[in-house]
Amino acid sequence: MLEQLREDVFRANMELPARELIIYTWGNVSGIDRKTGYVVIKPSGVPYENMKAADMVIVDLQGNIVDGKLKPSSDLATHLELYKYYGDIGSIVHTHSRWATIWAQAAMCIPALGTTHADYFSGDIPCTRSLTSSEVFGNYEKETGKVIIETVDSKKVMDIPAVLVSNHGPFIWGKDTCEAVYNAVVLEEVAERAYYSLQLNKEARMSAFLLKKHYERKHGEKAYYCQD
Amino acid sequence: MLEQLREDVFRANMELPARELIIYTWGNVSGIDRKTGYVVIKPSGVPYENMKAADMVIVDLQGNIVDGKLKPSSDLATHLELYKYYGDIGSIVHTHSRWATIWAQAAMCIPALGTTHADYFSGDIPCTRSLTSSEVFGNYEKETGKVIIETVDSKKVMDIPAVLVSNHGPFIWGKDTCEAVYNAVVLEEVAERAYYSLQLNKEARMSAFLLKKHYERKHGEKAYYCQD
Amino acid sequence: MLEQLREDVFRANMELPARELIIYTWGNVSGIDRKTGYVVIKPSGVPYENMKAADMVIVDLQGNIVDGKLKPSSDLATHLELYKYYGDIGSIVHTHSRWATIWAQAAMCIPALGTTHADYFSGDIPCTRSLTSSEVFGNYEKETGKVIIETVDSKKVMDIPAVLVSNHGPFIWGKDTCEAVYNAVVLEEVAERAYYSLQLNKEARMSAFLLKKHYERKHGEKAYYCQD
Amino acid sequence: MLEQLREDVFRANMELPARELIIYTWGNVSGIDRKTGYVVIKPSGVPYENMKAADMVIVDLQGNIVDGKLKPSSDLATHLELYKYYGDIGSIVHTHSRWATIWAQAAMCIPALGTTHADYFSGDIPCTRSLTSSEVFGNYEKETGKVIIETVDSKKVMDIPAVLVSNHGPFIWGKDTCEAVYNAVVLEEVAERAYYSLQLNKEARMSAFLLKKHYERKHGEKAYYCQD
Repeated sequence: MLEQLREDVFRANMELPARELIIYTWGNVSGIDRKTGYVVIKPSGVPYENMKAADMVIVDLQGNIVDGKLKPSSDLATHLELYKYYGDIGSIVHTHSRWATIWAQAAMCIPALGTTHADYFSGDIPCTRSLTSSEVFGNYEKETGKVIIETVDSKKVMDIPAVLVSNHGPFIWGKDTCEAVYNAVVLEEVAERAYYSLQLNKEARMSAFLLKKHYERKHGEKAYYCQD
Repeated sequence: MLEQLREDVFRANMELPARELIIYTWGNVSGIDRKTGYVVIKPSGVPYENMKAADMVIVDLQGNIVDGKLKPSSDLATHLELYKYYGDIGSIVHTHSRWATIWAQAAMCIPALGTTHADYFSGDIPCTRSLTSSEVFGNYEKETGKVIIETVDSKKVMDIPAVLVSNHGPFIWGKDTCEAVYNAVVLEEVAERAYYSLQLNKEARMSAFLLKKHYERKHGEKAYYCQD
Repeated sequence: MLEQLREDVFRANMELPARELIIYTWGNVSGIDRKTGYVVIKPSGVPYENMKAADMVIVDLQGNIVDGKLKPSSDLATHLELYKYYGDIGSIVHTHSRWATIWAQAAMCIPALGTTHADYFSGDIPCTRSLTSSEVFGNYEKETGKVIIETVDSKKVMDIPAVLVSNHGPFIWGKDTCEAVYNAVVLEEVAERAYYSLQLNKEARMSAFLLKKHYERKHGEKAYYCQD
Repeated sequence: MLEQLREDVFRANMELPARELIIYTWGNVSGIDRKTGYVVIKPSGVPYENMKAADMVIVDLQGNIVDGKLKPSSDLATHLELYKYYGDIGSIVHTHSRWATIWAQAAMCIPALGTTHADYFSGDIPCTRSLTSSEVFGNYEKETGKVIIETVDSKKVMDIPAVLVSNHGPFIWGKDTCEAVYNAVVLEEVAERAYYSLQLNKEARMSAFLLKKHYERKHGEKAYYCQD
């Protein structure tokens, strides 16, 4: 089980540059095994070209290294806060992908403007408040997790599986690594399109019922998109 | 004949990611055999990497499956409405391509601003009104077809072979699958260029006579573009 | 000589899609042999995938076919007008490249804003007036050539080797096919950058002396850029 | 040592087109051996396709050629001014990369708006004043170096390792060729993102403490990013 997760997390990390979400080491993916409470995460600052599945670091929910020779991603504490608070999250992606970061730098939510957005996110993608000076100079990565928790309603956490951290970038999640990376790719697309649609028409909005319809067509109890 | 159409529809679907009109499963192409009234369409939610011509689904104009083991695209009912109403359409493409979707999300028509547009579309690309709540929660995909019919003048259907569905994305067509995909690619180009030209100059417009000249240079009775 | 030119014109045409200046058949390159007055040009509407050097069409300055089985580009008459009027032009490129077309659709000149522009164009890239109805419905391609001649000062023709035709796209030239295609690539770059610089700062301009300095560093009598 | 530097400078130059920072010959990288005071730099106007490590030119700090058969980059004098004034710089990159040039053409500083910027630059990227006529028609490349020195505070030179030359483009540096090219890639990313974030929100800014925190997380004495 844990070996499979290590492989999955490795592959999910490798998908970030392949999907052009990141350059260099500007992102990290983790996954959790809910039975043991162990989290597998990318090591810190290791070039993707040489990274192997065996380089993934396994930690417990307190951040203690269970297995692995390398230091875990410096954003580990943020991932752990989210796993502890939201019991349904199976995998978390953090990137500095271009368009999600552009919205984060503007400290703005990404409004739902069309069915591409609604197919994966049941509402606007929220943006956190700015961290205070004491949060930044305190336990910064943990405080980043806390401000996300302050922003993301736990009832909607799996229906709007992404958040922007103000002046920083996005965190995205899903039930497993595949879904989390998929959502990270979709976030980038909807972030770009929302920008241009609003430039064309500042009043652009989609109706609440079209949003609901499309989200439920794919994700509701009566979903009829896809085979079975 | 039907085997050829199945192959053509398969190839046209595969061209969507190759031309960067879609990622994942964000599009579908169908074609119709006007003699039998049978429609060949992409199956729903099947990854392009593994898709084969044999996966295409054949249905009649009422949507009954004639051949194929998979569920047809969830947008089938929209395609069928258009085939029933517009007798000249031989193939339909639906995508969430970036720039056409940006205009659709803004709920705006794409104005004809230059000869690139005029070479393929004899006027502005129209955008539908928003669907009502009862249309969305009723037979949604069929109602999407109806609102397109409400928008696209049947006299101009083959001269302006695309429409934007408000807050959703484009539907594009042609006499066959090649022409429909070609028009989908052109739509994406003219959508992007129109955006930027209008940002430079809000008053940008092209003359009706230049529009007419270029469209007829390629498509009129006295067309002189291309070999014969 | 003419065989070499046929090969050069073929290669220059093939460079247009390779440099992402065009898709499909949205461009054409010609070259002239000033001794014979013969012009080699791409055939009309032939897909680039299958095009061979032998498909290039050779015509005289009146447009009579001297050699070749295919119809010449429908824009031939425009090329011929320019070769007849400007004796220094050795090759002409016409494309619908994205950013040059965006400016042409806005009917605006591209202002010189930096040294990238100044290294190749000694001033703003001009844009023609719109053609009149009688020009469009008369000998359209020849009239396009005439409106370019009306716009491009023959003293500056080799120092600002490009023009935008209003609501259409760019024509670019050089002393030979290599230089003409090179200038077409540069035009696309400076068109894109000028757009964004002006969005940032509507007052953006470069000094006349910096423009002169950079152009002459590469092209003046005392040029010192490059080996010899 | 010098052979290694020649190889490093060659590889760094080759990385410019590979990272899509330049087309044609629109950039140059140099490196300095502080023991001998010798500088290795790209030759002027040589196509990248054929360039070899042996083509790199070695000069002393007065610009005299120590080794090499080709003329050095025409921007050499700018590089030399910077090496002489800032003792910590080990390598300099000059490009006409798209987004940095867009800001330079607008004659504007690139504001720090997020952690992607702060991870590599401890403040806004400055832009020089315009050169005067006598500077441009005097020893132009040397004067370009001087106006950079006028702009870049020597206390911050390694903490904000880039500058925009007004109406021209960026110069970027680092302790060695790898770091200089890396910073050139990051500059391009932050330049693009800052543009779009400001279009979304003219008031976008990041706090001084978040800027400081992120810069020091990677570069300060207590840096904890990366493996040791």
